[in-house]
Amino acid sequence: MTHKILVMPGDGIGPEIVSEATRLLNALRDRFGLDAELEEAPIGGAGYDAAGEPLPAHTLKLAREADAVLLGAVGGPRYDELPWEKRPERGLLAIRSELGLFSNLRPAILYPQLASASALKPEIVGGLDIMILRELTGGAYFGKPRGIDTREDGVRQGYNTIIYSEPEIERIARSGFEIAMKRDRRLCSVDKANVLEVSQLWREVVERVAKEYPDVALSHMYVDNAAMQLVRAPKQFDVIVTENMFGDILSDAAAMLTGSIGMLPSASLDAAGKGMYEPIHGSAPDIAGQGLANPLATLLSVAMMLRYSLDEEAQAARVEAAVGQVLDNGLRTPDIWTHGCDKVGTQEMGQAVVAAL
Amino acid sequence: MTHKILVMPGDGIGPEIVSEATRLLNALRDRFGLDAELEEAPIGGAGYDAAGEPLPAHTLKLAREADAVLLGAVGGPRYDELPWEKRPERGLLAIRSELGLFSNLRPAILYPQLASASALKPEIVGGLDIMILRELTGGAYFGKPRGIDTREDGVRQGYNTIIYSEPEIERIARSGFEIAMKRDRRLCSVDKANVLEVSQLWREVVERVAKEYPDVALSHMYVDNAAMQLVRAPKQFDVIVTENMFGDILSDAAAMLTGSIGMLPSASLDAAGKGMYEPIHGSAPDIAGQGLANPLATLLSVAMMLRYSLDEEAQAARVEAAVGQVLDNGLRTPDIWTHGCDKVGTQEMGQAVVAAL
Ligand SMILES: CC(C)[C@H](C(=O)O)[C@@H](O)C(=O)O
Ligand SMILES: CC(C)[C@H](C(=O)O)[C@@H](O)C(=O)O
Repeated sequence: MTHKILVMPGDGIGPEIVSEATRLLNALRDRFGLDAELEEAPIGGAGYDAAGEPLPAHTLKLAREADAVLLGAVGGPRYDELPWEKRPERGLLAIRSELGLFSNLRPAILYPQLASASALKPEIVGGLDIMILRELTGGAYFGKPRGIDTREDGVRQGYNTIIYSEPEIERIARSGFEIAMKRDRRLCSVDKANVLEVSQLWREVVERVAKEYPDVALSHMYVDNAAMQLVRAPKQFDVIVTENMFGDILSDAAAMLTGSIGMLPSASLDAAGKGMYEPIHGSAPDIAGQGLANPLATLLSVAMMLRYSLDEEAQAARVEAAVGQVLDNGLRTPDIWTHGCDKVGTQEMGQAVVAAL
Repeated sequence: MTHKILVMPGDGIGPEIVSEATRLLNALRDRFGLDAELEEAPIGGAGYDAAGEPLPAHTLKLAREADAVLLGAVGGPRYDELPWEKRPERGLLAIRSELGLFSNLRPAILYPQLASASALKPEIVGGLDIMILRELTGGAYFGKPRGIDTREDGVRQGYNTIIYSEPEIERIARSGFEIAMKRDRRLCSVDKANVLEVSQLWREVVERVAKEYPDVALSHMYVDNAAMQLVRAPKQFDVIVTENMFGDILSDAAAMLTGSIGMLPSASLDAAGKGMYEPIHGSAPDIAGQGLANPLATLLSVAMMLRYSLDEEAQAARVEAAVGQVLDNGLRTPDIWTHGCDKVGTQEMGQAVVAAL
């Protein structure tokens, strides 16, 4: 069956890096028999420019029809003054919610070829390979009530609600255990159960789901301690599962441990395994349009898409091997360049990966 | 006028490290003319043991009467099974709230003598000296509604409320600017204004207060980016101001950047400058009672107390100089020991600081 893939370039460097992903997917189709069909649609600032909305209805329709979605990045200074509901980020949050993409996989992997890019000592991060699983459609991001209003005594206040239901916690916990089963079978659930009731329920439900996975070693950690442990000894972790906001913070910290955030892909999955794939880095407006952006996180996002949503493990492995190959050959975009390596641009890097397939 | 100081040893290593603080304060009184009077009271698990409450009424009364409060640490496995309201942490949260200690100063300083203890490369953290100012009596920690209940459709849910009023934001912002004025005049306010309404109000109020401090360079950063930047290039910061939960997470990450959390003090101040002082590290039940704990964070907390609440700058500087002296002399408790240094215990370290006064 033909895989239907929707590509959404978005803003900033999005179009450049997604171009390279398209090049890669076309090569897999033409040379390696991948049965795939690509469509393109605007989102974020580009959605606003095209249709007045950060998530145009037509884009959402195509996304629903697709088997998988590839996103570049959204946001940029041009859109900073737009009203709240029109801002690029709203498009991102809306598509996560509309497609039910509750399970956000954010690997933090240190590529041995790039070990020196890390701010941490080699003995602390060498060989790092952890997976952060972030709940993506609940918590304070979507919780109600929310807003800014004036109290009876005339004082203004702002508020948001961190809220999780039992089924929401259950399904993300289950994703966490499933992922741990395919890795080193260690799952660390991060919460703030010593302060927050929502975390107490989180912990209780995770404990209950754990009974279905006797082979996985479960531990719990408070979020402040997790932030410390990621800096002190990140290799102690295998899989971390946590709620939306904690996951936002910890996964970015974990990604930065590697020093090469331009290399890290992510996947956001629904209950059926359909997903949206995107690099962890943002839209980098400062270097947009100059051919300097690193396309590898996007190409590795394609690999995750092939593996998790399209069930094409061999093609996924082929992409990852090709990326390893170009790194071995010493090709580097400016963000990961070090002395003695070949500095290349976005297109050259994309072409090299395709050539190495 | 005689300074009234309340010491609350608390749990775990608390009593050991607070003993050394008492030794230090007595020495300052007997040898250097500090006019101070000490009382002691239980809190946390010790409060529960003594009076059935993690914050006994008598402890709170003494704390209100004191000019400053010194806390060891609270918590331990013995108290893990207690009901929520009796847990040691509740005592800590209650005293913060009852005394109105909204302004929590958490310095992250890398002592040159201990530079090698950091997980980060020397060029990234060498000379690190940043101040994280955490709002301590608002946000999700105290926000209502909160709880775990069952929805109409029979599904259980847990929830907490992140809430800030304009005056709450204003006073912590003002603290941030005041501190920045005494340092490098750069203040970074951390929020999640692209997602949370409470952060939008936060940002708006901080912007307004900024007008009173034209000499301070204000910037804003999203919390996920702040977590990354702390790992990537922590020295870019001077003072960071943020809400309660973000501050909990970021200040622990920042403390761990130094690699020697046993060295870091903190201060929690009310509107009048009265404060509670405590080491950033916890109660470390695993090493409690063995004379292994590092008392220096507690002694440096005494220095902060002398400076911020008792207006005894000279005494504060004396303590800090003495701590620097014993580090120069090569004395190290096990947590900061490296080859070639002298390994000493809690008491020996405390005595050495007193001798170096
Ligand atoms: C852009 C923003 C809304 C988003 C988030 O906070 O989820 C981003 O930081 C991310 O992590 O994908
Ligand atoms: C013990 C806990 C309630 C506390 C907090 O989260 O505030 C601690 O982590 C701290 O940072 O002082």
